[in-house]
Amino acid sequence: MEEFFQEDVISIRDMDSEKLESIFGATEKILRMPPDSRRKITLGRTLGYLFFEPSTRTRLSFQAAMAATGGTSLGIADVTSSSTQKGESLADTVRIMSIYSDVLVLRHPSDGSSRFAAEVSDKPVINGGSGTEEHPTQAIQDLFTIKREKGKIDGLNIGIVGDLKYGRTVYSLLYGLGNYDVKIKKRLSFTESASLEDVIDDLDVVYVTRIQKERFPDEEEYLKVRGSYVIGLDMVKRMKSGAIIMHPLPRLDEISADIDRSRNAKYFKQAEYGKYTRAALLGLILNKNGF
Amino acid sequence: MEEFFQEDVISIRDMDSEKLESIFGATEKILRMPPDSRRKITLGRTLGYLFFEPSTRTRLSFQAAMAATGGTSLGIADVTSSSTQKGESLADTVRIMSIYSDVLVLRHPSDGSSRFAAEVSDKPVINGGSGTEEHPTQAIQDLFTIKREKGKIDGLNIGIVGDLKYGRTVYSLLYGLGNYDVKIKKRLSFTESASLEDVIDDLDVVYVTRIQKERFPDEEEYLKVRGSYVIGLDMVKRMKSGAIIMHPLPRLDEISADIDRSRNAKYFKQAEYGKYTRAALLGLILNKNGF
Amino acid sequence: MEEFFQEDVISIRDMDSEKLESIFGATEKILRMPPDSRRKITLGRTLGYLFFEPSTRTRLSFQAAMAATGGTSLGIADVTSSSTQKGESLADTVRIMSIYSDVLVLRHPSDGSSRFAAEVSDKPVINGGSGTEEHPTQAIQDLFTIKREKGKIDGLNIGIVGDLKYGRTVYSLLYGLGNYDVKIKKRLSFTESASLEDVIDDLDVVYVTRIQKERFPDEEEYLKVRGSYVIGLDMVKRMKSGAIIMHPLPRLDEISADIDRSRNAKYFKQAEYGKYTRAALLGLILNKNGF
Repeated sequence: MEEFFQEDVISIRDMDSEKLESIFGATEKILRMPPDSRRKITLGRTLGYLFFEPSTRTRLSFQAAMAATGGTSLGIADVTSSSTQKGESLADTVRIMSIYSDVLVLRHPSDGSSRFAAEVSDKPVINGGSGTEEHPTQAIQDLFTIKREKGKIDGLNIGIVGDLKYGRTVYSLLYGLGNYDVKIKKRLSFTESASLEDVIDDLDVVYVTRIQKERFPDEEEYLKVRGSYVIGLDMVKRMKSGAIIMHPLPRLDEISADIDRSRNAKYFKQAEYGKYTRAALLGLILNKNGF
Repeated sequence: MEEFFQEDVISIRDMDSEKLESIFGATEKILRMPPDSRRKITLGRTLGYLFFEPSTRTRLSFQAAMAATGGTSLGIADVTSSSTQKGESLADTVRIMSIYSDVLVLRHPSDGSSRFAAEVSDKPVINGGSGTEEHPTQAIQDLFTIKREKGKIDGLNIGIVGDLKYGRTVYSLLYGLGNYDVKIKKRLSFTESASLEDVIDDLDVVYVTRIQKERFPDEEEYLKVRGSYVIGLDMVKRMKSGAIIMHPLPRLDEISADIDRSRNAKYFKQAEYGKYTRAALLGLILNKNGF
Repeated sequence: MEEFFQEDVISIRDMDSEKLESIFGATEKILRMPPDSRRKITLGRTLGYLFFEPSTRTRLSFQAAMAATGGTSLGIADVTSSSTQKGESLADTVRIMSIYSDVLVLRHPSDGSSRFAAEVSDKPVINGGSGTEEHPTQAIQDLFTIKREKGKIDGLNIGIVGDLKYGRTVYSLLYGLGNYDVKIKKRLSFTESASLEDVIDDLDVVYVTRIQKERFPDEEEYLKVRGSYVIGLDMVKRMKSGAIIMHPLPRLDEISADIDRSRNAKYFKQAEYGKYTRAALLGLILNKNGF
């Protein structure tokens, strides 16, 4: 377990399947632990968060992971609108936060920001989403969800529904899936040629992403796609019985609320696993001999 | 004590006097406990707060209740200005927060929001103020204050000073008082016929509320009332010796600061009891066999 | 150690060298303690913060001090933009926060605000920066840094670089240094007659402050000074070998990043000591027999 102790988590591309299995194993352990034992994992430790892009969801997932394992969180939820800035460099902000905490989470719009932060920080840095491609803890959460809900990752047919253009979530997932023997169908949609309808009955995992409004040239075009781009009961009926539907959340209209209770809908489970995979990762980083 | 375990707290109208007495008893117990024992009540538990209307006072009261009993809080202090939203439904926001915590507090402008949230949440939901009528934890705090400071609730003469039109605090208190045999004089003011001056010497409890500026047709009218609507030393002198003055706070000019030290002024005690009644409620919800 | 128990910390002018030595001794003790022992110092206690001027740095330093010693923090990071206000008086805001916590930190633009708050609060109040002159915990942090890095304070030559006009940090440091036998050169700059260049090789401590942009009559003037006002490698080479460079942070261009790794640069150490001097102070205030 020492492979993660005091190590940074910068990119999912640094993780091979062996490392991923270590994290999955630690997550399974936490899921089976009685709450009293969980609360010793990060007891007395402090997570420092620095979000240069606000992301309430990711921040709360980390805070919940610390709280469930006995630790504390503090930091800045929106650095750019914070008084901290006053023109301060990223290096200085990171250095100071590394004094106030035992492990850092950094969310930043720039590629390379986390690697840079890790160089100047005295404490391990976790990339909480950076640039266009990197969101390693989201990828770990997604891979764990597939593994746990399907029992395996190798051999699966995985469809990615929606736009990939600005999706660091999808890019990170694709990099992570590179460790496994999977067939991936990307950019599935209702409006493009490689359409979801054509392949739905062949997929084991349907990974739906949010439509990025800012990508569309005009509002009308956006609304047309937004309206057509919905996973509903009709689609679920055509899926394999054990197939699962995932979504990084928040969702808008991409998934109809009436399938939330179907056996296939796993996006809330996915959010729950996000808390526990993060707890596992934090536990491995903060404890020399694991937990 | 199992009657509250894992139960929602949606409306003060769901509470009969027996339930209220259970909460009052648990509050008394906490007040007498040494701090070390208190800190075991919610140890390792997490409160998740979702405030769709900002209310620093109510949020901090809950956070302080958790902190005093050993627990942790996390959440969103202002959901509508948060990145979480991005158009996400209330149901999804509540579901996710219920993954991150052991009990939820929801503040929301809509009637019925808490009942709806309780239906979709896996964890118990406490209404932290909703719509025009519901603020059950404020009512519990107020009823406990009356009980503790007057020794009883039955048989008291209670005057409500000020406007009731938009006051969920007052509505909830009135519903709560419905469990007791009290005489209530409502809408007392200096400018209307049922004036405070006429009844002051007969009251056991004077409950003062904030003037709702937005209710007045114009600024001039508001300022006229605001100026006349003050409980001062002259009024206190006319009160029964054991009568108490309450206010949900924050106050503006409704109560003159020079009576803060009078024996009758109980609004700071009331705020303190707010912390402990919430601690008691959280303790009952989170512990199967009470605490 | 009882001299600090339940006492307010309002001004560095209330501290004689004996009191300062008590705090320094307690800080040294914390620095040597194993983390598990540290976490008992404020275990189960709550710090309430009220920042009428946002100061992420100072707030996080206090929060980190509580977290490292086992305690919790809650409060309002920006009172003026908070819903709490609604016109509420400082006295009421302080009184309520003193109900929610065991010790308060107040940051406020007005001179005298902390002394006033201490009068109305049931709990001890620490001044987290007020008015133009007072920032006692910053001064304690700075004095401790000098003491620890130079082995003593008496007999040192100390240069203050930059503007003193709006600097409560510098004023508080100067008051604190009044307890020691030091030679102080103030208002050193590259542009004024008492220039840093003339005295640099004589100084034991170079204390650099941020240029206050708002002080300059126009942008052009500001940029001229900002550009000239830099401690770089050339300056470091001229310093005594054991001399130290301090800065309250955040810095802009006053100190070149290329000297961060020099043995003389102590501003990040200074930030770290800020966390531990605050932890020591909180520990002394909250524990009757010290820790």
